[in-house]
Amino acid sequence: MGLFSKEIRTMEDLHLHLLQDIYYAEKQILKSLDDMVENATNRKLSAALKSHRTETETQISRLEQAFELLGQKPKGTTCPAIDGILKEAKEILGDVEDKAVLDAALIAASQAVEHYEITRYGTLVAWSKQLGNTAVATLLATTLEEEKEADRKLSALAEQTVNVKAAE
Amino acid sequence: MGLFSKEIRTMEDLHLHLLQDIYYAEKQILKSLDDMVENATNRKLSAALKSHRTETETQISRLEQAFELLGQKPKGTTCPAIDGILKEAKEILGDVEDKAVLDAALIAASQAVEHYEITRYGTLVAWSKQLGNTAVATLLATTLEEEKEADRKLSALAEQTVNVKAAE
Repeated sequence: MGLFSKEIRTMEDLHLHLLQDIYYAEKQILKSLDDMVENATNRKLSAALKSHRTETETQISRLEQAFELLGQKPKGTTCPAIDGILKEAKEILGDVEDKAVLDAALIAASQAVEHYEITRYGTLVAWSKQLGNTAVATLLATTLEEEKEADRKLSALAEQTVNVKAAE
Repeated sequence: MGLFSKEIRTMEDLHLHLLQDIYYAEKQILKSLDDMVENATNRKLSAALKSHRTETETQISRLEQAFELLGQKPKGTTCPAIDGILKEAKEILGDVEDKAVLDAALIAASQAVEHYEITRYGTLVAWSKQLGNTAVATLLATTLEEEKEADRKLSALAEQTVNVKAAE
């Protein structure tokens, strides 16, 4: 993450660093979504991942607006957490042969990504409010709701289609 | 994670590997909780982390019961995701000087850990049900609820005490 370097002295610094962390994370997620879409065999899963790719682009531009509102230039900072989560996701693509098992693994990997985003945006919204950055809080709360909804959709997909087939 | 090696052919294989992943993760979390308790300055935060440490020990023994129910020996497999999340958490301990800022950073790091556990246990419960392992599903559903409750407690702490002070 590089989140917690020695320059972090105030809540404002901490807030800015977390914003840089999730900015880096979203850009990495965007890249990996292309691979995931390509590897999903279930049509509903493929469509869900594709629509989340579009959503991710909007979320990145919301982060750029947040930087602007704070008078800062958009900048990312390496985040080992998302790198690890995505490394696991990537490993699936080449290593599971059965298509139904692969889809189940892809859903699990995508949900791990969503939960990382949920926790980071949750923290950012709370801190933005506490620091009086209402506009930033509102902007990121929209993204937070989208991430929760994406996670719910993936859970429903896992229960209704992919895993049931896989377990047959 | 080493989760998705080439031996993963069936949903049963995938399920077992995810169990090994979270078993490794819980053991790493247990170690890092000691450092976190030591570094928290807010009394409520310190107490919450301490109580979660005890809970984590119980969760590890539940995982061992789950392995047993599946006729398997408990075994962990390296998980880069939790390693990354905990690396970030560790960086806080030495790099933020202000106590209120440090507490806020500790809460954020703990919530990232909780969300990783929530997504993994959520997936494990779903797959256990689909594979007909009701006893394993029930066991891990108890842990899932504990993790969700731990996350809720941390959110409340962030809003009620630590961050408010930090933002003053």
